[in-house]
Amino acid sequence: MTAAKTINFADKLSQFSDHWNPRIAAKYNDSEVRLAKLKGDFDWHSHAETDELFLVLDGALDIEFRDGVQHLGKGEMIVVPKGVEHRPFCEEECHVMFMDREGEPNTGVNPSDRTRDTLEAI
Amino acid sequence: MTAAKTINFADKLSQFSDHWNPRIAAKYNDSEVRLAKLKGDFDWHSHAETDELFLVLDGALDIEFRDGVQHLGKGEMIVVPKGVEHRPFCEEECHVMFMDREGEPNTGVNPSDRTRDTLEAI
Repeated sequence: MTAAKTINFADKLSQFSDHWNPRIAAKYNDSEVRLAKLKGDFDWHSHAETDELFLVLDGALDIEFRDGVQHLGKGEMIVVPKGVEHRPFCEEECHVMFMDREGEPNTGVNPSDRTRDTLEAI
Repeated sequence: MTAAKTINFADKLSQFSDHWNPRIAAKYNDSEVRLAKLKGDFDWHSHAETDELFLVLDGALDIEFRDGVQHLGKGEMIVVPKGVEHRPFCEEECHVMFMDREGEPNTGVNPSDRTRDTLEAI
């Protein structure tokens, strides 16, 4: 067994269909590489202890900040600094790679019925 | 000025053309998100203090390990654990997103004439 193995995002994404429920695709240092399918509006939240990286793999994602909206198309990324409130939303389904520190809930310091604090590794 | 700004990989990659000379596109926690154009053979090396994430944005990349080669096409990634010797190579130019801890030289603990230990931010 080699120390490192290629991960195919399309293969991983084909393994689930629900929205706003990230899966863990890999670990990098003390962070998790997560994959999710998103559709609709998410909750305002922030992460106290970690930046959050979003990379759009397919479709488009908007992220609302208190001072405006950033639009991300396929092949675009953003890093939301820790502590910064944000609200992801998208009209059509989009596929996203995230990075957060290990164990960070998807809703950060703002628990709701959308909170996923135990993520499945795929 | 918003706290976070969308980064377009194609725009960033259009700003340089040399090979094996990563640029810093963003910071995430104590890591750098780097972009590079690769072509040909790189040196065997390892990173003592950081895992290294590779994500192929365009083209294809092979990474040789002491126990075999992993092939990465577009939309495929791999995390090389810290301490693991590896040698990236590709016959045709490929475009890659990397992640390493801040300040980590591209050749890790194995300095050579390919070493870049001060990277330009773009």
